[in-house]
Amino acid sequence: MTSSPETMSPADFALAPGFRSAGVTCGLKASGREDLALIAADRDCSAAGVFTTNRVVAAPVVLDRDVIAKRAGGVRAIVANSGCANACTGDQGMNDAKRMAWLASQAVGCDPGQVLVLSTGVIGVPLAMDKIERGVTLAASALAAGGDSAGSTVRAIMTTDTRPKTAGATAELRGGGVVIRGFAKGAGMIHPRMATMLAVITTDALVPPELLQRSLVESTGRSFNRVSVDGDMSTNDTVLLLASGASRVRVDEAERGPFTAALTEVCASLARQIARDGEGATRLVEVSVTGAASERDAHLVADAIARSALVKTAVHGGDPNWGRVLAAAGTAGVPIAPERLALWFGEGADAIRVVNGGMRDAYDERGAAERLRRDPVAVRLDLGLGGAEATVWTCDFSADYVSINADYTT
Amino acid sequence: MTSSPETMSPADFALAPGFRSAGVTCGLKASGREDLALIAADRDCSAAGVFTTNRVVAAPVVLDRDVIAKRAGGVRAIVANSGCANACTGDQGMNDAKRMAWLASQAVGCDPGQVLVLSTGVIGVPLAMDKIERGVTLAASALAAGGDSAGSTVRAIMTTDTRPKTAGATAELRGGGVVIRGFAKGAGMIHPRMATMLAVITTDALVPPELLQRSLVESTGRSFNRVSVDGDMSTNDTVLLLASGASRVRVDEAERGPFTAALTEVCASLARQIARDGEGATRLVEVSVTGAASERDAHLVADAIARSALVKTAVHGGDPNWGRVLAAAGTAGVPIAPERLALWFGEGADAIRVVNGGMRDAYDERGAAERLRRDPVAVRLDLGLGGAEATVWTCDFSADYVSINADYTT
Repeated sequence: MTSSPETMSPADFALAPGFRSAGVTCGLKASGREDLALIAADRDCSAAGVFTTNRVVAAPVVLDRDVIAKRAGGVRAIVANSGCANACTGDQGMNDAKRMAWLASQAVGCDPGQVLVLSTGVIGVPLAMDKIERGVTLAASALAAGGDSAGSTVRAIMTTDTRPKTAGATAELRGGGVVIRGFAKGAGMIHPRMATMLAVITTDALVPPELLQRSLVESTGRSFNRVSVDGDMSTNDTVLLLASGASRVRVDEAERGPFTAALTEVCASLARQIARDGEGATRLVEVSVTGAASERDAHLVADAIARSALVKTAVHGGDPNWGRVLAAAGTAGVPIAPERLALWFGEGADAIRVVNGGMRDAYDERGAAERLRRDPVAVRLDLGLGGAEATVWTCDFSADYVSINADYTT
Repeated sequence: MTSSPETMSPADFALAPGFRSAGVTCGLKASGREDLALIAADRDCSAAGVFTTNRVVAAPVVLDRDVIAKRAGGVRAIVANSGCANACTGDQGMNDAKRMAWLASQAVGCDPGQVLVLSTGVIGVPLAMDKIERGVTLAASALAAGGDSAGSTVRAIMTTDTRPKTAGATAELRGGGVVIRGFAKGAGMIHPRMATMLAVITTDALVPPELLQRSLVESTGRSFNRVSVDGDMSTNDTVLLLASGASRVRVDEAERGPFTAALTEVCASLARQIARDGEGATRLVEVSVTGAASERDAHLVADAIARSALVKTAVHGGDPNWGRVLAAAGTAGVPIAPERLALWFGEGADAIRVVNGGMRDAYDERGAAERLRRDPVAVRLDLGLGGAEATVWTCDFSADYVSINADYTT
């Protein structure tokens, strides 16, 4: 019982067996790119979902929570759009989300209660339902003809993403192999506590919904919830996992370990791709905290470092200003013994220790700066307090982040 | 018993009666600007201090906490430097801070235990004690000659500040008038929980130390702790308040109200100046939250909005992307009823309501954009849940923030 990542470029990407999909252009995006996707399962799926913890949530999140609560054993489709978040749109927004589900149910031939809805884009603008309607009709035709290549589906949920994000893994279980394949979008407004982006993950495993949900919560806790781009938290962010059972390989409690391990690989790969593609980012930054008293402490300290605008700008400039890392660590609200801190820039044997015993180590300034110019950038802080560790992914912080976000609606 | 702000430009700024000061250049700053200040009281002062909550603190913070604990009734001097934070410098740093206090005590003619120390600048570099020594000698000569104009003192604690920050107020008490005059530095790495900057406030009131401390805690809670520039929290940030008693006007429990009101005016003015001068900032942003169930809730929501990089970049671009404000509010961790939210851009009768009942109001897009281009920018969110309110000050977020911070040490 092992798990291994698939090498799967966006161009080769396919959903797991048991799913078809189409991505079409219906005019929601001014760019004329794909903006509506329909994903259909050949039969009823197990479904799991993890949602934003923002108190202001978009209509599709409300709808999906309800579908997962009532029909986690029998989901048939996901309909998704970009270009409009359908958030802060009141009763109208809720009606529009329901109508999206209804349109998709007609296209796929199922009950509206078996459809999950995803929206992403600008907040506070009502969905152009005439466009959604046209999009679902177009997607339905494509599905009837066997579905598109998954590339158009992946592109249909992108907003300010500069590249598609896809990942796959296989798990060898007692009953045979299963595949897990997912895609995601997300660039700005990314922050942990499951408030990160949209992701759709599919598997051909046969998994009871309750077990599927537990695995998804566990995997997101170590992947999407460990990404930080700008500390903002969206109203829409959602991870959905559908299990078609097409492989007929059953996942039970005994097999949950390797299944979850493969799922975590997929989620972590997507999470890293999201961090790497943070708005204006030029490099992925992996912040590891080791020697912590607990994994929770390690996560909190890594998160405080990854959130620090001063750390992220220093990385952008290739400036080994390690004081900012220590100062950020000190704000995490967990016990720290400054005199035990050690800090490395770079990875493994090649890393340069810049701090030892809480103070500047004798290090090569040029070498340290060079480590911060690599991609990914590795930063490791050892707290010297225990054996627990955690890694958080973020990106450097460039002036482009500001220009991208200074005029997103106007 | 009333309090009123003084109109006092940096050029006219003076400390309260009973204090002399000097600001000199000793070579800690590459720029050749003033970098060491000595502030001396004519007699023993009451002293109060509020310090960073960062777990990684600079040596001067450790020293000052100790002085305030032991000698709050008998402080005689403050010695301050910029160009070097004396943070993450281990035992050497502690010895250097103590030596700074000793040097100042010799210059002023008091016990080393009566001296407070402030340092600001790069973290992790030891203090150049030869320069400090020369600086204290220079400052002592200037003090002996009556002291400099306060302008050089104010400039001696500046780092990336683009302008000096000074404020004054008077309080009319039963026994007569007292003045309160302070100055501050701070630009990046500014965030609430008393982790904001350096500030020195002087008064000629006669105040018992315990009462002085309570007033300072109260005033900072509504001023410096309501400023956010980048969410970072420094290792050094400190507010010191010295009361010379030169006015012979006694502040007792009955007079604490108007005294604290005047102190809060000074602190709030300095806090706004710090926010306005945030690194790369072009405009002051006042985020008010009204209609909250408690002041704590109002503060948390206002803080979440003021911290949001997406809100701050939208303000920078003059982009009325109000969805980001609502999304940020939703992350504060306090109960919110989205359908009760109302949001205004602009001030007072001139404000434009862009959200009503949690949804887009019918508003003039050009007018809303224009409100975001004013200085200060006023943003008010009403939660519709109660009568409490709070204001947090921040700044817009420009590409210059990134260039300033991408290469601060190298």
